[in-house]
Amino acid sequence: MGPGRKVDEARLWQRHMDMAELGRTPKGGVRRLALTDLDNEARATLARWGAKRGFKSFIDPIGNFFVRREGSDPSLPPVMSGSHTDTQPSGGRFDGIYGVLAALEALEAIDDAGIGTRRAIEAAVWTCEEGGGGRWPGTLGSSVFAGARSLAEVLPLADFDGLTVGAALKRTRAHLPMAADRPLGIPVHAFVEAHIEQGPELEARGKTIGVVTAIQGVRRFLVEVVGEDGHSGTLRRALRRDAFVAAAQMAVALQTHFHDPEDVVRFTIGRFVVEPNAPAVVPGKVTFSIDFRHPDDAVLARLGDGVAGICQAHRGPCAVQVKETLWVKPTAFSGLLPALIRSAADRLGLSSMPILSGAGHDAIYLARVCPTAMIFVPCEKGISHNEAENATPYDLASGARVLAEVLAELANR
Amino acid sequence: MGPGRKVDEARLWQRHMDMAELGRTPKGGVRRLALTDLDNEARATLARWGAKRGFKSFIDPIGNFFVRREGSDPSLPPVMSGSHTDTQPSGGRFDGIYGVLAALEALEAIDDAGIGTRRAIEAAVWTCEEGGGGRWPGTLGSSVFAGARSLAEVLPLADFDGLTVGAALKRTRAHLPMAADRPLGIPVHAFVEAHIEQGPELEARGKTIGVVTAIQGVRRFLVEVVGEDGHSGTLRRALRRDAFVAAAQMAVALQTHFHDPEDVVRFTIGRFVVEPNAPAVVPGKVTFSIDFRHPDDAVLARLGDGVAGICQAHRGPCAVQVKETLWVKPTAFSGLLPALIRSAADRLGLSSMPILSGAGHDAIYLARVCPTAMIFVPCEKGISHNEAENATPYDLASGARVLAEVLAELANR
Repeated sequence: MGPGRKVDEARLWQRHMDMAELGRTPKGGVRRLALTDLDNEARATLARWGAKRGFKSFIDPIGNFFVRREGSDPSLPPVMSGSHTDTQPSGGRFDGIYGVLAALEALEAIDDAGIGTRRAIEAAVWTCEEGGGGRWPGTLGSSVFAGARSLAEVLPLADFDGLTVGAALKRTRAHLPMAADRPLGIPVHAFVEAHIEQGPELEARGKTIGVVTAIQGVRRFLVEVVGEDGHSGTLRRALRRDAFVAAAQMAVALQTHFHDPEDVVRFTIGRFVVEPNAPAVVPGKVTFSIDFRHPDDAVLARLGDGVAGICQAHRGPCAVQVKETLWVKPTAFSGLLPALIRSAADRLGLSSMPILSGAGHDAIYLARVCPTAMIFVPCEKGISHNEAENATPYDLASGARVLAEVLAELANR
Repeated sequence: MGPGRKVDEARLWQRHMDMAELGRTPKGGVRRLALTDLDNEARATLARWGAKRGFKSFIDPIGNFFVRREGSDPSLPPVMSGSHTDTQPSGGRFDGIYGVLAALEALEAIDDAGIGTRRAIEAAVWTCEEGGGGRWPGTLGSSVFAGARSLAEVLPLADFDGLTVGAALKRTRAHLPMAADRPLGIPVHAFVEAHIEQGPELEARGKTIGVVTAIQGVRRFLVEVVGEDGHSGTLRRALRRDAFVAAAQMAVALQTHFHDPEDVVRFTIGRFVVEPNAPAVVPGKVTFSIDFRHPDDAVLARLGDGVAGICQAHRGPCAVQVKETLWVKPTAFSGLLPALIRSAADRLGLSSMPILSGAGHDAIYLARVCPTAMIFVPCEKGISHNEAENATPYDLASGARVLAEVLAELANR
């Protein structure tokens, strides 16, 4: 019997519920921002669960965390699976944490099936995938692991309160005395990330397993509009340099620019901060974010390159600065790994379909250093980055079953 | 020699500089929000300065604070003058505090001139004129003093962090052991408020004293747009309920609605809060403020009544709620007091002109309970509610000279 059938649906579900207590919100969602005590405690909880099986824990200099089931040849690069424990500011119970818990469940299922592997298999937690609510870059840990960002460049990055990544990591390290240190970017044999779909396709088509073919690309911009504070009752319109008025005009013009009748473009202004933000003061400053995604890099280039000009055209009497903060090209998954996922699903009698990922994932960066693939499972109505995020115990367990089969196979190849 | 000539320009200027230390910002402005320790300390400082002259201090249940120079008949209602010690979140060194310090200076000048008065004269500090940066209603203390709001209604009002007016007032009371308690809304013989103009007219016309004829009216609205949080990478536009997109459309449409070629309308969206305010989350909620002012109540009625319809028309797939939080009609100042101000300025050889107040002031509410007037002095380029706010020692002292003359005259009538 393969390890997929040893996956324990009730255990996996209970662990999601236990993890959801770390940062539970009144509406039943989760707020567990990267590198906070809550996020650190999620890693500690994983270490304790793993330790019951004799799995050892490791941490690297960017806080990526690994629970390892040893192989017969410890010198070989391990097979890895995992995702992240941090959430959006008003996040749900499954985004990220599912990939981590499915990986641990796979390790335990392989253990329960009595299967020895040549290569070690590790459940990985990548640091700060969600960006800590706009405080730091997203996919921070996996990008540093893969060498796309350097440690030296990210450690001094400060959040809104001046807390640097480096200072936060010291707290994280101190929270995890049970973990052994490990250097950055060790060789990896293969990486498979399980995740809720965060879109409606699997549910709509009645499929349980999504075999991810690609992740769309993303460009991020930060727009800073500077005018001048003034008194709302006395300052004439002609003399105002109202940063809010200019920013609102830019926002509406950008909506028009990015409008796509086929609805493939994903354009979002998610963060918009007004200063001083008082009812009786003409705003002197607005800062807002742009998140733009598309599967086609040529479209990313063409539409994204229009942002700065549109902001300049609508700045009125204010000054505007547009800074591009991220451009991640689309990532394709092909070859052996997607095929293994597909055949494991078939073997377990689970329906599957190829699917595009709208969201970014740590797998983007792992794909730069080793063969990589992703497994999606359905989430209710496609709702994600939302406290109402939901998934069924059956679907979650199904993804973990496929994962356990694939990981065991890769670790013995 | 009248008391106006006893005003000490250097002393008055130094006290402005001393007060500016309480909440000084790096840019040289002041952030001294209502009922914070800094604001409480401003009252304590006034009490200490007054005590050197033997002036007693009083506090009422809404935190309004009074420094009293006793009259020969303590049973008569006092003459009052004053303004506020609190500032906007990024405010300046003169808005509000000038009216308080000019009143104290007038008391001292009358003292130095050896003038006894029948009625007591009091320098008043009205609580929370600026609304604490949108936390509580503005002109809180003067409106409760005048009975326009009840104490019972305002004490439970909580700010963004859950701090109620009542809890903040307990801290304020404890900060001022030197002040005696006084009931709310004692009879007042007359009230004169000195203030920087907060507009460019006096400077532009080369006049020193503005005799305020009226304060324009104001309507305030709070607009709450509710959509649904979603993932910026996966959620299709057609399925989004993006509260930011709807709110930006409303803001642009409202700008058009309130556009006035004659530039008399004052329309401001000063506070705009997005939730959860993260770059990768479609915003599920936006709350924004509308501040609309005009000297003509009929225009306030006509244009203001259009707000709710415009917001509804641009709500898209979101829900919107428009709540009117304030409607203060224009306040006219006429009769004896403006005439006294005009003739005191003439007597002192200071140029003067009638002027409309664009900003709201505590005088609006005092005008409901006693004869009331205002004295404006120039401020640099009309800049206010801004850290760059500036005024000259000469102009500030000139306003205090007129004030001292008028107060002494009123207290002996």
